[in-house]
Amino acid sequence: MTDRLDVVAIGNALVDVLSHESPEFLAAHQLTPGAMELIDTERAELLYAAMGPAVEISGGSAANTLVGVTSFGGSAAFIGRVADDELGAVFGHDIRAAGVEFLAKPAVDGEPSGRCLIMVTPDAQRTMNTYLGASAQLGPADVDTDLVARAQVLYLEGYLWDEPEAKEAYRLAARRAHDAGNRVAFTLSDSFCVDRHRHEFLDLVASEVDVLFANEAEITALFEVDDFDDALQRVQHHCEIAALTRSERGAVIVARDEVHVVDATRVGDVVDTTGAGDQFAAGFLFGLTHGYDLGTAAHLGALAAGEVISHLGARPATSLAALAGPLLDR
Amino acid sequence: MTDRLDVVAIGNALVDVLSHESPEFLAAHQLTPGAMELIDTERAELLYAAMGPAVEISGGSAANTLVGVTSFGGSAAFIGRVADDELGAVFGHDIRAAGVEFLAKPAVDGEPSGRCLIMVTPDAQRTMNTYLGASAQLGPADVDTDLVARAQVLYLEGYLWDEPEAKEAYRLAARRAHDAGNRVAFTLSDSFCVDRHRHEFLDLVASEVDVLFANEAEITALFEVDDFDDALQRVQHHCEIAALTRSERGAVIVARDEVHVVDATRVGDVVDTTGAGDQFAAGFLFGLTHGYDLGTAAHLGALAAGEVISHLGARPATSLAALAGPLLDR
Repeated sequence: MTDRLDVVAIGNALVDVLSHESPEFLAAHQLTPGAMELIDTERAELLYAAMGPAVEISGGSAANTLVGVTSFGGSAAFIGRVADDELGAVFGHDIRAAGVEFLAKPAVDGEPSGRCLIMVTPDAQRTMNTYLGASAQLGPADVDTDLVARAQVLYLEGYLWDEPEAKEAYRLAARRAHDAGNRVAFTLSDSFCVDRHRHEFLDLVASEVDVLFANEAEITALFEVDDFDDALQRVQHHCEIAALTRSERGAVIVARDEVHVVDATRVGDVVDTTGAGDQFAAGFLFGLTHGYDLGTAAHLGALAAGEVISHLGARPATSLAALAGPLLDR
Repeated sequence: MTDRLDVVAIGNALVDVLSHESPEFLAAHQLTPGAMELIDTERAELLYAAMGPAVEISGGSAANTLVGVTSFGGSAAFIGRVADDELGAVFGHDIRAAGVEFLAKPAVDGEPSGRCLIMVTPDAQRTMNTYLGASAQLGPADVDTDLVARAQVLYLEGYLWDEPEAKEAYRLAARRAHDAGNRVAFTLSDSFCVDRHRHEFLDLVASEVDVLFANEAEITALFEVDDFDDALQRVQHHCEIAALTRSERGAVIVARDEVHVVDATRVGDVVDTTGAGDQFAAGFLFGLTHGYDLGTAAHLGALAAGEVISHLGARPATSLAALAGPLLDR
């Protein structure tokens, strides 16, 4: 079938606004280092006014993952919501230019397009402040179920759980994916997000999610345990595949009886950790949808994560297919 | 006087939209490598749709120079025109966040804010396509003459000569600056720009300009000579100070009986030459307005140019004052 896709994702359509700031800046504005916080218009204006000169680069967690998938040579489509404004046009241009199918028409009324104010500190850590805008108004009507049916994997980000309508969109899409015999992948997104939605996330992981992505903070938050190994034990009985990332300690893939441990891959100096998890998911999903074993898929994830943290922005700056080279030859 | 400024500039208020493209891309779209071309809405839409994923960074030649001046620790103000839209807000935020005074209110009707579509090729060369938009509608009413009077140097970019109203704005500002006993500095901007306005530029340089900035292509185009040395002979009798840049061959400063030759300064690998001339002007103007000799001013210019070509974008990514360090100690 020519129009079969590797991955379709539903996520927030955001443009990242990145500046370099000091730890003192974070403290002065009551920002939790490394966290993602949802902000309203007033707070967005206040923080933006306080930020230093910035760079705008398209972002959005699931959207970043799809761009990584196409950079490896895979096929992908995005479902998300932008307004008919300049940032919406920027988002649409960039994701399409990366080869991701994105057909949704910009919304002509309602909130402006979403943006994420990201402060990068000298330790390369990013602190994110998301004004969802038009993205928060995503609902079941935005879900193209035919598109969902076409993809081997439906990828969903936990971030959108903050909006009831978006949740309905997710549920609809997940049903359609399973009906079509496809897999559902889910990322826990952020430990604070997990805290807000723990019970629902536990249900989801147990009942609907085939492939779970989480970092150490997120997976321990989900099971309310202190220790990564405890979380690992718990997750093994909860879903088909769990891909757990541990920053510079690499990643652990758990799948029923298999456990794969992979090291982090260093591509260059660490400049900005924004998008590390998104790109790990990209490499892993590319591997999974192209018949690679779980260990190789995890290596591809680690490579993509290593690349993206070597520069500003959450999307690859080079061809991941070229970077992966021999890893892709079988 | 506490409100005395080092430099005030009038220029195009633009946001740069940068992508990496191949030489074949330039050829396919009839683009002249390294040139700046003015484009209309239709061409802007066509080129943007064809470009790869991009990054948005505030630009505008004279605006970039002012940000360089403040990065050295100088004081600066900008006169330019943006619309009341998201790119206008981005431009305003970034220049103010860099410490440049920019008080103009965004225009509520007319064209959208200007942008410059920049293709960076693997040789680090940039090819620019400017949609001026709101910026082209700058006129004498936009010139705050009190602000002009406050600055030691009024800096004008040749680019705006393409618009009759902007030219009037420039003439008004230049008169005010000279009446107040200040210097007028001018950059030829681009050799194609020089071709369009040669006679007027020759008049300007002979009659109004105290400090002239030009690169090799621009100064030879101005005097219609093939040889840089011939151009140098000619310019020596035309204005007080001429700062002539020659890419990797450094710069030559000509001032009546003085000639200073400075080498290019290498700060890192050459990634993107966008802004090299703008930042040379920044360092030179900072030096000039802070009592440094012409040779040191040229060294500061070479340093700022070396920094800006080591990364994507036309504004400094680090403190130029810190980078200059010992050069600033006398």
